[in-house]
Amino acid sequence: MTESPVHHEPPIYRRIADSLRSQILSGELRDGDRLPGENALMSEYGIARATARQALAVLINEGLAVPRRGSGVYVRLFRPIRRHGSRRLSREQWGQGRAIWDSDTRGRAYTVDEVHIERLPSAEEIGRVLDSDEVWVRRRRYSVDGRPVQLAASHFPADLVEGTAITLPDTGPGGVYARLGDLGYSPVHFTEEVRARMPAPHESELLRLPAGNPILIVARTAYTSGGIPVELNEMTMDAAAYVLQYDFDA
Amino acid sequence: MTESPVHHEPPIYRRIADSLRSQILSGELRDGDRLPGENALMSEYGIARATARQALAVLINEGLAVPRRGSGVYVRLFRPIRRHGSRRLSREQWGQGRAIWDSDTRGRAYTVDEVHIERLPSAEEIGRVLDSDEVWVRRRRYSVDGRPVQLAASHFPADLVEGTAITLPDTGPGGVYARLGDLGYSPVHFTEEVRARMPAPHESELLRLPAGNPILIVARTAYTSGGIPVELNEMTMDAAAYVLQYDFDA
Repeated sequence: MTESPVHHEPPIYRRIADSLRSQILSGELRDGDRLPGENALMSEYGIARATARQALAVLINEGLAVPRRGSGVYVRLFRPIRRHGSRRLSREQWGQGRAIWDSDTRGRAYTVDEVHIERLPSAEEIGRVLDSDEVWVRRRRYSVDGRPVQLAASHFPADLVEGTAITLPDTGPGGVYARLGDLGYSPVHFTEEVRARMPAPHESELLRLPAGNPILIVARTAYTSGGIPVELNEMTMDAAAYVLQYDFDA
Repeated sequence: MTESPVHHEPPIYRRIADSLRSQILSGELRDGDRLPGENALMSEYGIARATARQALAVLINEGLAVPRRGSGVYVRLFRPIRRHGSRRLSREQWGQGRAIWDSDTRGRAYTVDEVHIERLPSAEEIGRVLDSDEVWVRRRRYSVDGRPVQLAASHFPADLVEGTAITLPDTGPGGVYARLGDLGYSPVHFTEEVRARMPAPHESELLRLPAGNPILIVARTAYTSGGIPVELNEMTMDAAAYVLQYDFDA
């Protein structure tokens, strides 16, 4: 889509990758379709096996295809989940719902597993944000259609939430924000910090990521009206599964 | 920092990678430091060369280290640039400037090169967002301290901006937004859609990315008070160079 302002005649493996990429992005090849194998590419283009492998590796590295052991390379598309940072200033009010990236706007059902709650000493940067040496942490994994898409770890200042349902598996009606409200610490301001990087090995395992699949990390801090930080939720997302949307005014 | 709720005894190459990662993240090893080589790891841990290589590959894949041909593997840290999505609802008002990730808050100077301006038929999804079959596109590359960090491509509805300074290298005082204002189309609402993926080959080249370095993509659409989309800026960023920050109220 974006043409480089610097032009080179690309090597053959790239031209093959470009052609396959176009077929994927145009919809000619669909999610789950098998790409031409090394043998097919070798005879179609008159190239060596290493070159055919290189062409397929380009698409695997871009996250558009995934190898299945002993079976070939398959198109891997996923309609990403659209996650709205703010619902108050919604583009629906002014933008007629336009969006650059296609996504699934139906609320697909999340399932939650691997729930794990504990009181711990704060990691350095979390202690600094929450102004607290110890935290209660609620970890869970979210899946959509059986595919793990997000790990979330909500951190709360330990002394603030000690003895409340925030430290229990069932947080009661309205969840953790209602419980913070019960304490007189309703969150009303939010900051989200967004980064992307390659996953660490345990993140790859928990999200069942294919090699070469990056992650998005969103660190969301919630503040009371008085500016007291009451929650830091670190969300680790399969980058192929999410579009993050933020709407704001000038 | 985030402990997995599922525990395995990790293989030796991971334990070596974990140890090196801790040294990097604690600051014991600094940006530009050479990591222990394959030979040093082999004799220190009594492992095979392939295992030593695997340990180093973990850190390279995570973007924490970069190989230099014939010279070894080096720590590659970069204090990321903090980019604020919205300046109106700023956390500085309530959050005492707390942030989970360290970043460079001084405004480091951007340099711009590779400026390229042309009128083109709209790519499908851009035409849909801007409601226009043709666009004027302004492409440029931004660098900080000599390192390319961002490619940006601003798209404008072609008929709206035809004949204005938006189609010229020098857009005049106040830039493209002032020129849109001159036309009676000041942008006041913004939507940003954020994704991450591995770069395509031409993106890697233009941003000079090491292998295994993902990119962040921000598609920013600007709307007038009447809800007319007047600009779509697609920004492609070295993920290692940026933290995106968004502040909003409940």
